[in-house]
Amino acid sequence: MKAIELGIRIGTLEHGKMNSITDVKGVKVGHVTLIWGEGKLIPGKGPVRTGVTAILPHDGNIYKEKVLAGVFVMNGYAKPVGLIQVMELGTIETPILLTNTLSVGVVTDALIEYMLKENEDIGVTTGSVNPIVMECNDSYLNDIRGRHVKKEHAFDAIESANKYFKEGSVGAGTGMSAFEFKGGIGSSSRIVEIAGEEYNVGALVLSNFGKREDLTIAGVPVGMELKDWPGRGGNEKGSIIMVIATDAPLNSRQLGRVAKRAIVGLARTGGYAYNGSGDITLAFSTAQKIPHHMEKPLKLDVLSDSSLSMLFKATAEAVEEAIINSLLQAETMIGRDGHIRHALPKDKVLEIMEKYGRLERS
Amino acid sequence: MKAIELGIRIGTLEHGKMNSITDVKGVKVGHVTLIWGEGKLIPGKGPVRTGVTAILPHDGNIYKEKVLAGVFVMNGYAKPVGLIQVMELGTIETPILLTNTLSVGVVTDALIEYMLKENEDIGVTTGSVNPIVMECNDSYLNDIRGRHVKKEHAFDAIESANKYFKEGSVGAGTGMSAFEFKGGIGSSSRIVEIAGEEYNVGALVLSNFGKREDLTIAGVPVGMELKDWPGRGGNEKGSIIMVIATDAPLNSRQLGRVAKRAIVGLARTGGYAYNGSGDITLAFSTAQKIPHHMEKPLKLDVLSDSSLSMLFKATAEAVEEAIINSLLQAETMIGRDGHIRHALPKDKVLEIMEKYGRLERS
Amino acid sequence: MKAIELGIRIGTLEHGKMNSITDVKGVKVGHVTLIWGEGKLIPGKGPVRTGVTAILPHDGNIYKEKVLAGVFVMNGYAKPVGLIQVMELGTIETPILLTNTLSVGVVTDALIEYMLKENEDIGVTTGSVNPIVMECNDSYLNDIRGRHVKKEHAFDAIESANKYFKEGSVGAGTGMSAFEFKGGIGSSSRIVEIAGEEYNVGALVLSNFGKREDLTIAGVPVGMELKDWPGRGGNEKGSIIMVIATDAPLNSRQLGRVAKRAIVGLARTGGYAYNGSGDITLAFSTAQKIPHHMEKPLKLDVLSDSSLSMLFKATAEAVEEAIINSLLQAETMIGRDGHIRHALPKDKVLEIMEKYGRLERS
Amino acid sequence: MKAIELGIRIGTLEHGKMNSITDVKGVKVGHVTLIWGEGKLIPGKGPVRTGVTAILPHDGNIYKEKVLAGVFVMNGYAKPVGLIQVMELGTIETPILLTNTLSVGVVTDALIEYMLKENEDIGVTTGSVNPIVMECNDSYLNDIRGRHVKKEHAFDAIESANKYFKEGSVGAGTGMSAFEFKGGIGSSSRIVEIAGEEYNVGALVLSNFGKREDLTIAGVPVGMELKDWPGRGGNEKGSIIMVIATDAPLNSRQLGRVAKRAIVGLARTGGYAYNGSGDITLAFSTAQKIPHHMEKPLKLDVLSDSSLSMLFKATAEAVEEAIINSLLQAETMIGRDGHIRHALPKDKVLEIMEKYGRLERS
Repeated sequence: MKAIELGIRIGTLEHGKMNSITDVKGVKVGHVTLIWGEGKLIPGKGPVRTGVTAILPHDGNIYKEKVLAGVFVMNGYAKPVGLIQVMELGTIETPILLTNTLSVGVVTDALIEYMLKENEDIGVTTGSVNPIVMECNDSYLNDIRGRHVKKEHAFDAIESANKYFKEGSVGAGTGMSAFEFKGGIGSSSRIVEIAGEEYNVGALVLSNFGKREDLTIAGVPVGMELKDWPGRGGNEKGSIIMVIATDAPLNSRQLGRVAKRAIVGLARTGGYAYNGSGDITLAFSTAQKIPHHMEKPLKLDVLSDSSLSMLFKATAEAVEEAIINSLLQAETMIGRDGHIRHALPKDKVLEIMEKYGRLERS
Repeated sequence: MKAIELGIRIGTLEHGKMNSITDVKGVKVGHVTLIWGEGKLIPGKGPVRTGVTAILPHDGNIYKEKVLAGVFVMNGYAKPVGLIQVMELGTIETPILLTNTLSVGVVTDALIEYMLKENEDIGVTTGSVNPIVMECNDSYLNDIRGRHVKKEHAFDAIESANKYFKEGSVGAGTGMSAFEFKGGIGSSSRIVEIAGEEYNVGALVLSNFGKREDLTIAGVPVGMELKDWPGRGGNEKGSIIMVIATDAPLNSRQLGRVAKRAIVGLARTGGYAYNGSGDITLAFSTAQKIPHHMEKPLKLDVLSDSSLSMLFKATAEAVEEAIINSLLQAETMIGRDGHIRHALPKDKVLEIMEKYGRLERS
Repeated sequence: MKAIELGIRIGTLEHGKMNSITDVKGVKVGHVTLIWGEGKLIPGKGPVRTGVTAILPHDGNIYKEKVLAGVFVMNGYAKPVGLIQVMELGTIETPILLTNTLSVGVVTDALIEYMLKENEDIGVTTGSVNPIVMECNDSYLNDIRGRHVKKEHAFDAIESANKYFKEGSVGAGTGMSAFEFKGGIGSSSRIVEIAGEEYNVGALVLSNFGKREDLTIAGVPVGMELKDWPGRGGNEKGSIIMVIATDAPLNSRQLGRVAKRAIVGLARTGGYAYNGSGDITLAFSTAQKIPHHMEKPLKLDVLSDSSLSMLFKATAEAVEEAIINSLLQAETMIGRDGHIRHALPKDKVLEIMEKYGRLERS
Repeated sequence: MKAIELGIRIGTLEHGKMNSITDVKGVKVGHVTLIWGEGKLIPGKGPVRTGVTAILPHDGNIYKEKVLAGVFVMNGYAKPVGLIQVMELGTIETPILLTNTLSVGVVTDALIEYMLKENEDIGVTTGSVNPIVMECNDSYLNDIRGRHVKKEHAFDAIESANKYFKEGSVGAGTGMSAFEFKGGIGSSSRIVEIAGEEYNVGALVLSNFGKREDLTIAGVPVGMELKDWPGRGGNEKGSIIMVIATDAPLNSRQLGRVAKRAIVGLARTGGYAYNGSGDITLAFSTAQKIPHHMEKPLKLDVLSDSSLSMLFKATAEAVEEAIINSLLQAETMIGRDGHIRHALPKDKVLEIMEKYGRLERS
């Protein structure tokens, strides 16, 4: 269950229909989850707790019909692939793949291969392609040196993408930790009205950051209250990847502004963007498609910047809840060397929320 | 009284001795406060509710002995002067002046004049000087079109700079609003230990942003509880200037990283960096002075990036408390056209904090 | 006479009708030139060799109808005002003023005053205004400490703006030096065809940079040949401001890309962006106006990025020629302390161009 | 033979001993060159004209002893890996690998694997690693879709790195084109004296950009003269990767400034950074090593920014000559579909240089 279903309200804006990034029409998410082995870490042998997550901006050929996008790097202690071109051209032309840090190479290779298959002209009659792959470090639970992600896993993540998808310890989130609990994939969405039109803003996060005592839920110092809950350990290294989708017609400059507001949500959960935490946001709009070949000037709809404030708020709220949702939906996992990440103890959390007057009664 | 004195604890780190940016040795702050007239706005005639605040990084000749600095622009809907050069060269060579948006020109002119007086070689035998002036828009209370700030006010703010200084509705903060209450100048500090050494991190903010319902104090939704408290009005336009000082030996790249973490503190008070809010951070280190003329390579101390995490946290906490302190120390003010900004109702706030279990008993 | 009129061809693209930034319809340029006194520098008394130049993006109310813009900072050792907001919002809402470094404050103040006069709503019922002022350091010839530019000079520069304007030692260019010759204001333009439409690209530069031996004209090492020509002196400090106008429908991201290509032109004249040289480009498009108040989403024309290459080339060529034009049109000037900047010796230059096979016969 | 050996002098500064990036002590370069097949392109089958180039900043363990670095992205239409972290932390911790665009994934994967082998603690007791891989698109000659680069090729390029290395159509440069001639790998260096110390600045480029008519050698319009030389074709898409090494003690901010000046050299050869050309510079200093584990603050030497001008000039000159050297040392190559890239016709070029008075007699 997500935060709102448990009576934890984050922010004040209306949720999207599914409270998911896929409330933005056309967006799909797929996972491949890799779990096997247990016990002592034997690099190359396991235990394996990792995976791949794919986010598809739309149903069609993304290379032929690109989407506008913007980036914000809160902390660049990170190994993302493809962002330099997004910063320059303001477009995304491939699915967005998430995985573990040491599998970025193979997943990039897979994404290139996938795009070549889909587009016979790449490298023959047209230019190349800009694969987008982002990562967090799951080495607390996973044999990350073993690089168990293979190209097929990336293909499968893309192929399995769906409007409905699991959250928690799945896909790229399988081995991730947040606030020294089990983290992973979380999503949430908000609806805003601008000049008489309703727009959706959805967030998907790969959460893998934070010290236990920093965890904050709807303003409540849950982490301080759970300081002595078992399962602490690991260092504060970690990261978070935040992907924002919207159907509002924004240009890439504006999407960069939206991407920055994800940090507001991150901060409210207890994120400090500590030194070792690579904190990256990628925001895209599905409102308009940019053709790969374009002769005549395009006519693009662009919202006024002065109407963006509620989109900024929606972004912050969706990210904040998405992070909490990633915790609430992850299950306890034991990984390498007996390292354990407990699921956030939901009953205890609700008790704390109540104590601080922040639990909504149904 | 500041938050901590009222029993409101923000964050977990130890406060500096005075809980002020001037806990960083050598830093001084001065104000000139301009208040006169009342009633209907007659542009050029008043009412006047504005001023100038000066922050001096150290006691000596700042042009001859520059300090290292970094910048972060969360939202560039703002008119700061001097930041482009700080981004390039990583140094500050003048006092930092704050004022209202339409007085940026005259205050820049004054700061140039002040620097020329202090340095007879500028423009004759050496180069020019990079004045640093930042601003917020106080037009809800102030006759901003009247541009009542004069050069002398800037000089006086610099001359009056002291280790001890007022907060609240003073200096540049005189006419500012935050969360539809009275905002202005606030400060706070934290102490961190790195590799056996103690370092101070101090923040001074000029707060002028936020919608009433967004106000959050130590995680508590105070703004929602005070939604119906009188004095609402104005739009969400506004801004915040955040100045961070530290005695930790950081280079300009690292100070840019520190500057980014101010946003974490901002976010936790209810800041969203709405479209019209120019949110800017300038961070400097007093640990080392960079001579204007330098022949031989300098030997500079630089902390390891891997030791910065607690400095990041200290920055976030100091900014968060500085914002709340700006509210707690500002007094109700009536400005143009009968516009009123109430002081944050302290008793009511403490009641709310208690209700949500966040008030510390002395 | 401009380069092309002398038989010096820079680049291969077609020139605009007037070979001027004002070939972009609606753009106007005005100057105020301040020259008095001679002999020894007495700060505050002269000699005075300075001024103000104003560039108006269009005829109408620029605040109410903004133009899209982009910025590139090649070297931020500079004191421009207003660029942070252009980077964020991608628009210009005032005339663009150029002056000397120490007069940036007063000219900013004047521009604010001018905008307030033109727009009674600023600071009363609408927000503030973002003045754009850029500068170079003319202290080799001018009593820059005297700050002889007054507000009236800024107003006059704006008021006198015209499609036809002087180049060389006028306006902000009055006291500027380039390559240890007399520099100042120069302009040039190019025409490109994209998808069947003709677009103009115009450049205006304020040139104040370069060491004698670096001067290169159409690839010819003119500076090396004129190494021993009299009038050397001063250091390599200096700067260049480059303003690009186009009537092509570009968004602000694309205008930032255009702004970067100005550096190509700068480099070809012998520019290295030496440490002390603040090298800044501001590019704007007149193709579309962005209303100050905007309810519904705007429909904006945007050229395909893949059609920008010739605009990039046009920018580089126009800037390269504009710099050379600033030299060719400036007259010898004697300033403070008997400092002299000779006009580029045209006959000698043509002789050198011929020697290197780069002079076109008429 | 390099430009200077042919009597073509680019710039005025003194060359390093070998006129190579490896004049910076400790720097090594290795190549793997893949050439087989001919005739019609059969994707996956060939013809193959590609490779890998490795640049090692020093002899030791680069992960344990990082070097300071800075980045400049002139045109981000490119797929580099690892730059986001260099921008944030200012260090390089792996060899720098260059290859073709569609092989970035596999080469990244190989570099990760290589680093894991060299450092058993990565992913077990310490964090992850930031591989640096950059690319150009060699599809005019090469079966780029075939992705013929394998992990072993990357390993071999690293292992074969040496102070002495080939230039021209080798390594990553094998299938590259520049100005519709054969391009590839080129290098050059300069020596500058600062405050009594001599420093080396070396450049290595992977050239793959430019239209024939734009080619400029030491200011001479060689490309215009060779407009009708056979072998034209392909579009202006392409890119250039520029790597700068120096033994001057610079910090990462300053190395970013150095990286920007590479564009000056690029511009002078006829580069316009056309839309499709990803133009990236990475600059590093070998003067100081940054330990992976660092407890106490480091004492770092830093040159004064005011002493950097000659380093900027050296960078521009070294890049300009490196590009020309890449052309002069490349050999004619026939690739896919009979596409041919002629070597720059040296005799003809010398004749043109002489005609324009730019050939030095030995």
